[in-house]
Amino acid sequence: MKIALCPGSFDPVTYGHLDIIQRAARIFHKVHVAVVQNPNKKSLFSLEERLSMLKEATRGWANVEHGVFSGLVVDYARAQGATAIVRGLRAVSDFEYEFQMASMNRYLNPDVETVFIMTSSEHAYLSSSLVKEIAMFGGDISRWVPPHVEKRLMEKLRRPEQ
Amino acid sequence: MKIALCPGSFDPVTYGHLDIIQRAARIFHKVHVAVVQNPNKKSLFSLEERLSMLKEATRGWANVEHGVFSGLVVDYARAQGATAIVRGLRAVSDFEYEFQMASMNRYLNPDVETVFIMTSSEHAYLSSSLVKEIAMFGGDISRWVPPHVEKRLMEKLRRPEQ
Amino acid sequence: MKIALCPGSFDPVTYGHLDIIQRAARIFHKVHVAVVQNPNKKSLFSLEERLSMLKEATRGWANVEHGVFSGLVVDYARAQGATAIVRGLRAVSDFEYEFQMASMNRYLNPDVETVFIMTSSEHAYLSSSLVKEIAMFGGDISRWVPPHVEKRLMEKLRRPEQ
Amino acid sequence: MKIALCPGSFDPVTYGHLDIIQRAARIFHKVHVAVVQNPNKKSLFSLEERLSMLKEATRGWANVEHGVFSGLVVDYARAQGATAIVRGLRAVSDFEYEFQMASMNRYLNPDVETVFIMTSSEHAYLSSSLVKEIAMFGGDISRWVPPHVEKRLMEKLRRPEQ
Amino acid sequence: MKIALCPGSFDPVTYGHLDIIQRAARIFHKVHVAVVQNPNKKSLFSLEERLSMLKEATRGWANVEHGVFSGLVVDYARAQGATAIVRGLRAVSDFEYEFQMASMNRYLNPDVETVFIMTSSEHAYLSSSLVKEIAMFGGDISRWVPPHVEKRLMEKLRRPEQ
Amino acid sequence: MKIALCPGSFDPVTYGHLDIIQRAARIFHKVHVAVVQNPNKKSLFSLEERLSMLKEATRGWANVEHGVFSGLVVDYARAQGATAIVRGLRAVSDFEYEFQMASMNRYLNPDVETVFIMTSSEHAYLSSSLVKEIAMFGGDISRWVPPHVEKRLMEKLRRPEQ
Repeated sequence: MKIALCPGSFDPVTYGHLDIIQRAARIFHKVHVAVVQNPNKKSLFSLEERLSMLKEATRGWANVEHGVFSGLVVDYARAQGATAIVRGLRAVSDFEYEFQMASMNRYLNPDVETVFIMTSSEHAYLSSSLVKEIAMFGGDISRWVPPHVEKRLMEKLRRPEQ
Repeated sequence: MKIALCPGSFDPVTYGHLDIIQRAARIFHKVHVAVVQNPNKKSLFSLEERLSMLKEATRGWANVEHGVFSGLVVDYARAQGATAIVRGLRAVSDFEYEFQMASMNRYLNPDVETVFIMTSSEHAYLSSSLVKEIAMFGGDISRWVPPHVEKRLMEKLRRPEQ
Repeated sequence: MKIALCPGSFDPVTYGHLDIIQRAARIFHKVHVAVVQNPNKKSLFSLEERLSMLKEATRGWANVEHGVFSGLVVDYARAQGATAIVRGLRAVSDFEYEFQMASMNRYLNPDVETVFIMTSSEHAYLSSSLVKEIAMFGGDISRWVPPHVEKRLMEKLRRPEQ
Repeated sequence: MKIALCPGSFDPVTYGHLDIIQRAARIFHKVHVAVVQNPNKKSLFSLEERLSMLKEATRGWANVEHGVFSGLVVDYARAQGATAIVRGLRAVSDFEYEFQMASMNRYLNPDVETVFIMTSSEHAYLSSSLVKEIAMFGGDISRWVPPHVEKRLMEKLRRPEQ
Repeated sequence: MKIALCPGSFDPVTYGHLDIIQRAARIFHKVHVAVVQNPNKKSLFSLEERLSMLKEATRGWANVEHGVFSGLVVDYARAQGATAIVRGLRAVSDFEYEFQMASMNRYLNPDVETVFIMTSSEHAYLSSSLVKEIAMFGGDISRWVPPHVEKRLMEKLRRPEQ
Repeated sequence: MKIALCPGSFDPVTYGHLDIIQRAARIFHKVHVAVVQNPNKKSLFSLEERLSMLKEATRGWANVEHGVFSGLVVDYARAQGATAIVRGLRAVSDFEYEFQMASMNRYLNPDVETVFIMTSSEHAYLSSSLVKEIAMFGGDISRWVPPHVEKRLMEKLRRPEQ
């Protein structure tokens, strides 16, 4: 069975992420989506909130499962039996950073291959950061995130201290 | 009448910004230059200082007016009657970020179009951040900013607490 | 009155071109779309065919007019009273070539400014060449070109000698 | 069973191509490598020569099979039962062209997904064209192509009329 | 005598940096490698630690000498008698930032030329930041840094307060 | 003595080329500028014409000498005693091609290093091809090429059969 790992911050999950997960689920037998806990990177939502939104957004997707991890992505991939790490590619800036990551991960564990899938064109310029910035200024974000994510984002921005 | 909005941080305004404003003023009937107040982005100069330097730098320019705003740029554009947002393009890194912004703004308000103007070649690699860094180390910045901006930058760096 | 020039090969016109022309027509009072006759560049359709397809595709568009030209684009722009040349930007490869052109045109005539408009995301990766290649292999191109262009393309590929 | 299609000109096959095929063969159950017959693109080697060199270079590779095709890559992928098209990504210039292809193929057949694999760093700047140019000038190309390809390339360049 | 300056953060020095220094040392008579003290940029290692690791890594290299500086790189270059600043180029993201720097330095002192050397392909995607991140998560970094740097990095990450 | 090789098509030489040669001549003791004879690449001017225009443009430059070559650039570099190949970098598209060349040349002869110098910003978007195209359409090219090159270009375009 071919298993792929989809790691990400998902802060919060967007339709762009969901598009990539769905495409990966058509290519691989199982897709393990994992929220990364990175102590060096500040996130708006807690690890639990990010996982919970992700779970709700992919509820009922047959061959998709979830998890959280900290540490090296190749170690987590091996622990999950994944032979591939799937990443969405949007644009040139992505490209360079993703290639650095993929190249260094390849040295760390040559048995796990990174594969890239192109984001669908309507999400080609979508980013979690811009979604959060637009939400903060009261803009309509329903085109970029599922309803339950939009709701939580609104609550979070109204009560940022929680 | 065709009105264009030129939004920016202008922290501080450089000859690169002024070049773009001048070009925009030749294409549109009126150019509204607006200093963005972004609570998430730290600036060296206050909103008032940035507006004041910008005003002095464009004094006497017939069809250029000024303002400040926080919030969504498309909302502000609409409030000013602008049908276009003008952005200067310098290089590949700009390109990607600018396209994300333009694409998301297009969804937020399809009636406001973003147009890009190429920075003139002598300013192709000019950035406010590098100007500030060079000034901090005592380098001569008179080639990149107007005299009154240079003066204020020197004062600010001498007394950063103010 | 603000007039813009939209030059191109239009071999043949695609929905990507039409998207840019439409956006330009919202920003400027009049948009002059011109088919370029470049003796150094081989085209599938003749100049007349390209102009005729373009005219039909933009029929009834209030402030759009048409023409053909050979020679320097800045000379033609001046002759049409245009203060701006409008170009669609798709991706990084475009970007460099377009900047070369814009930069050299600026030196040739500083009174004509080149402005760039971002192609809408569903046309971000559309190109006339790929459309022709797909049509040649019998693929469905109705998503990328208007019906009358599809028809002419089919005829042309069936009888290439004409 | 998950089948992937690796299409290419392979004019001639290099270690860069073989690296990508090998990586694909670890991710998918079967990899179908297909030489593209493109009437618009001039090649140094004939279709048969290119296929023969490719076959010899991958002889004994368990889950790799071969073919040739002309026409739309998505049609051929479907005919082979492939759910994925695998492409090697080298650099920025590749990126843009590959994204155009992937995007248009996605519209032509949404059931076939294009996935990208990063070329290993020692082949990051390898190209068939440069190999041919270097061979033509008598340079040592043994680092970039298998011995039997080097031999055939030398023969071909000595007797180009064949 | 032709002297080149190699400035950098070296936080810590990697095999990528050493590769560039070595290549520069073959082109110029003397290479002065200088650790930059930038008050605006947080570093993991102190200036002294970075210099000490750099010195040990280049011990015995005939025409390489060391230093530290703060301030403008062109002023330091002049003080060292250098006619060239050498920078390693890795990828597109580097490219833009490096060109900004080189362009502004050229205005600050036209007598000092910036020259770029391509990182060897096995280090094409190596970065100090990723090395630190991988080390933090317990990954093996011996492929990217000399043994003494690896040892110090391990100690530092175990006792980050020092 | 440090010798650098500046290879190029120089079809014809532009102020952009001359800028790079001049900068190289400040860094190295001697700069050998060589016109490449590439049978696969069509040129407007003959090898002799290109060399002659180049010689006139650099007449009196103390440490610059000239030559022509066909074959591998690293072989020619070695024959001239050059330890470095100098290339001008203009933009992203250059970057990729230049890196391919430099990488493959490095394998062919590790003793010759390729170094890149940034074109001055006023020539950042200058290309021989565009100059020829503009000249063909009667545009003023005096800003991009020396007077004697402009003259020859005009003559050539008037009598292309020669």
